[in-house]
This record gives sequence, C-alpha cells and structure tokens, in this order.
Amino acid sequence: MLELHHAGLSSCSKKSRLCLKEKGLTYTSHYLDLFKFEHRQPRYLELNPNGVVPTLVHDDKVIIESTVINEYLDEVFPDPPLKPADPSGRARMRVFTKMADEFALPALRVPVWTRFRLAQFQAMDEREFEGVVERTPIIEHRLRLRALRAGGFSDEAFKEAFARMEYVYDRCERTLADGPYLAGEMFTLADIAMLPYVDAFTGLRPELIASRARVRDWHERMMARPAVQQTFSPSSEAPEIRLAPARS
Amino acid sequence: MLELHHAGLSSCSKKSRLCLKEKGLTYTSHYLDLFKFEHRQPRYLELNPNGVVPTLVHDDKVIIESTVINEYLDEVFPDPPLKPADPSGRARMRVFTKMADEFALPALRVPVWTRFRLAQFQAMDEREFEGVVERTPIIEHRLRLRALRAGGFSDEAFKEAFARMEYVYDRCERTLADGPYLAGEMFTLADIAMLPYVDAFTGLRPELIASRARVRDWHERMMARPAVQQTFSPSSEAPEIRLAPARS
Repeated sequence: MLELHHAGLSSCSKKSRLCLKEKGLTYTSHYLDLFKFEHRQPRYLELNPNGVVPTLVHDDKVIIESTVINEYLDEVFPDPPLKPADPSGRARMRVFTKMADEFALPALRVPVWTRFRLAQFQAMDEREFEGVVERTPIIEHRLRLRALRAGGFSDEAFKEAFARMEYVYDRCERTLADGPYLAGEMFTLADIAMLPYVDAFTGLRPELIASRARVRDWHERMMARPAVQQTFSPSSEAPEIRLAPARS
Repeated sequence: MLELHHAGLSSCSKKSRLCLKEKGLTYTSHYLDLFKFEHRQPRYLELNPNGVVPTLVHDDKVIIESTVINEYLDEVFPDPPLKPADPSGRARMRVFTKMADEFALPALRVPVWTRFRLAQFQAMDEREFEGVVERTPIIEHRLRLRALRAGGFSDEAFKEAFARMEYVYDRCERTLADGPYLAGEMFTLADIAMLPYVDAFTGLRPELIASRARVRDWHERMMARPAVQQTFSPSSEAPEIRLAPARS
C-alpha cells in the first residue's frame, strides 16, 4: 500500500507524483494545503520532521525528501527502470538530481513565494506570523519567511535566483549534447527532478530557454509525455494554486 | 585505475577519502591546494565544472560530488558494503547524506572560511580578488567570497550556521536512538558523510555534543576507526591546513 502526502503542483510534489505515474503505480493521495500550513501540523511533523512535502508511506515505512523517495520507488518498483543500468550513468543522473535540489529549488522559491505567499504573510498579525515561524523546522525557511514579511525579497535575491538558474540551464544545455536525456540515452530520475524547475523558469524568464536549443527541445519532449501532462495539469489530486487574498 | 583529486583535510575531500579507505581501495592521490586556487584552474574545471573538490577519475569516467562519488564507489566496489541491503535503510541513509550536503556543509563554511580565508581575501588587491571571483562557477561561493572580503560574515550568518548545526545534531541524536549508526544497524555512507561536520563542530562548539549523549558516543566510535584515523590526521596525502598569512 502506497500513500503520498503532497501539495499537488508544488515542485517537489510534482517530482514524486511524476515518478509514481511514470511507473504506473496506484497510490492514495493525501493533499496538503500549504496556504493552511497543513504541512506544519503536529501529525504531519511526526511523519516528516522537516515539515516539507512530499512524504511517501509504503506499508509501515515512511520515506521523506522527493529525491530520496524517487530513488526508493525505483529500487522497490524497478519496472520501468528510471535509473541507468551502469554506475557512471547513475552518477551522472545524481549530479542532476542534486543540482535540482541545491540550485534550482532555492532559486524557484524566490519568485514563487513572492507571488503566492507575500500577501498572505504580510496580512497576518504578529502573533499569527510568529506561530507559523515557530512551527517551521528548517532555519532557511524561517529566515525566508521573515525576509518576505519584512518587505519581500531584495533585488539582489532575485538576481541571485536568476543567476543560479542560468547556471542550471547552461549545465543542462551542455549535457544534452551527449544524449537526448539529462543522464544520457534514457529518461531517468534526473529528467523528473529537473523538469518542474525548468518548466517554471521558462514561464518566468522565457529568454533562459529561448537561447538554449537543446534545453528547449528537451522541455518540449518532456511536456508531451502523458505522465507529465497528468502530473503538471490541475486535477482533483492537484488543485490549481490560487493566489492568497491580497491585503485590503 | 582510480584517481582522486582532492584537498586533503577539507570536509568533502575527507568524505571520499574515507570511503576509499574503508573499502581498502588504492588510488592515485592528486592534492589540490585551495589557497593557490588550484581547483579553479582551467584543466581542473574541465573535470569538475563546479570548481570544487573532490573529483574521482575511474579509468575514463569522471565522477563529481563527494556524495555521488561515494554512491558510485559502493556500486562498483561493493565489498565491504556501505549501504543497507534494504531500500528503506538506503532511503534513511540518503536523508542523512543529503542533510550533510544541504545543512552541514554550508554551516561549516562560515567559521572555516572566516578562519582560513578571510585574511587571504582581504590581503588581495582588487584585480586579483576579482580574478578569483571570475573563476568561481557557483554563485553562492561568489557571494560568500564578496561577503568575506567586505568584512567577514555577519553575526547573523554565524547564528544561522550554528542553528543549522543544532538541527543536524538533534536529528542525529534522534535517529541514533534506533541503532548504533545513522542509518541503523550498519556503518554506511551516512556516517561517512556526517562525520567531518560533527567532528568539526564539536571542536568549534563543544556544547553541541556535550548535551547529546548518543551523538557523543557515535562520534567517539567513529573517530576510533582505523580508516577514520588515517583520513582525518595530517599526512603526506593530506597536509595540515595552514592559516593564510595575516595582513601586514
């Protein structure tokens, strides 16, 4: 029995939902509303001490971190395989799953939190806001919450986020010269990990992809996959992310 | 034929050196002097586009990122195994190798760069310093270089680094209630990944470990391992890190 606790169209949730769908696995979906801070409720924090989404529950086993979840799914349900058969191909794949986690995710948080969370945090009274900070286990997120409420991210933070994504696009462009997928000849967890970020930044900064023909072609091929269409489109499992009400 | 390009006693270099030694593998050691920016020379950047250490070369294969290198080594040289046999044990292991990369490494950079690099960067003239920044591929590192030169890390940055390590120690303390090692019953890549950070922070902030009996016991057991003693002690392969000459 597989259960996924996730936030639908959030980038890390998409990663694990896509992995499940590419493997044709059925699972019970538990949607968490990030705007209601359902990922910071005590019961969820017992499953996931970082207070982030997604979390996989497989029988009695609890697996956290989308990258770790996807490696787990591929080990337990190897058909179809989403890792190269040779260790050096797997290493190449892991360089990209790691880059998605360490470069692309923090970069995406800057514009996404600004668009979807700024108004919400600024509309809270002090006590309510401090309660949210208090229930946030990861210090980076706490600092970012405070920065947002204090007036949004700085121009410097935006510049840094876009510079980080330029680097990611460059690395993808370079590696796609060697094969149609990020880890070479086959579709792998690397493509799954990077797609939500490349897709989101393509919407935010079209020039990033316009100047990189191989990434553009890869993005088009990825978005045409049936499992990607199911995962990235709003659905009952993954409702459209609505903007928080603006401050009156 | 195995070759490791590394910086000896730097934390990520220790991780891959320790993995090699725990497996009893022989390799050709290429020491890079970080103070001379040998990791930013064009020839090295061709091997490792991030301009960081270590890099493993195995026959014609180039593997970067210490965490990825260690998974690769365990797949290619599985004896003795350094990953749990069951997928959920491996998932638990990967949560900790990821935590070492994403929480502990950035936390350690703050005190370490302050101690070992501040004087060097401040002693450089503008042109030399900008040359160093220019050859630094990763934007976080560029920003940190500039912050250092402009007057060192802020009190806030130190507070954040120590808060991050408190969180890491807490997570280790909690998981060690379930078994003698971070991933449970066996010594794994999780212990290898976390040890350089826990060891360094124990020197910097002894109270972190003094109040956590299981981490203290784990740290003592780890440091008694012969491969750890070889890896963490200065040697011809890993010269003692010397302080850069202070500004006159």
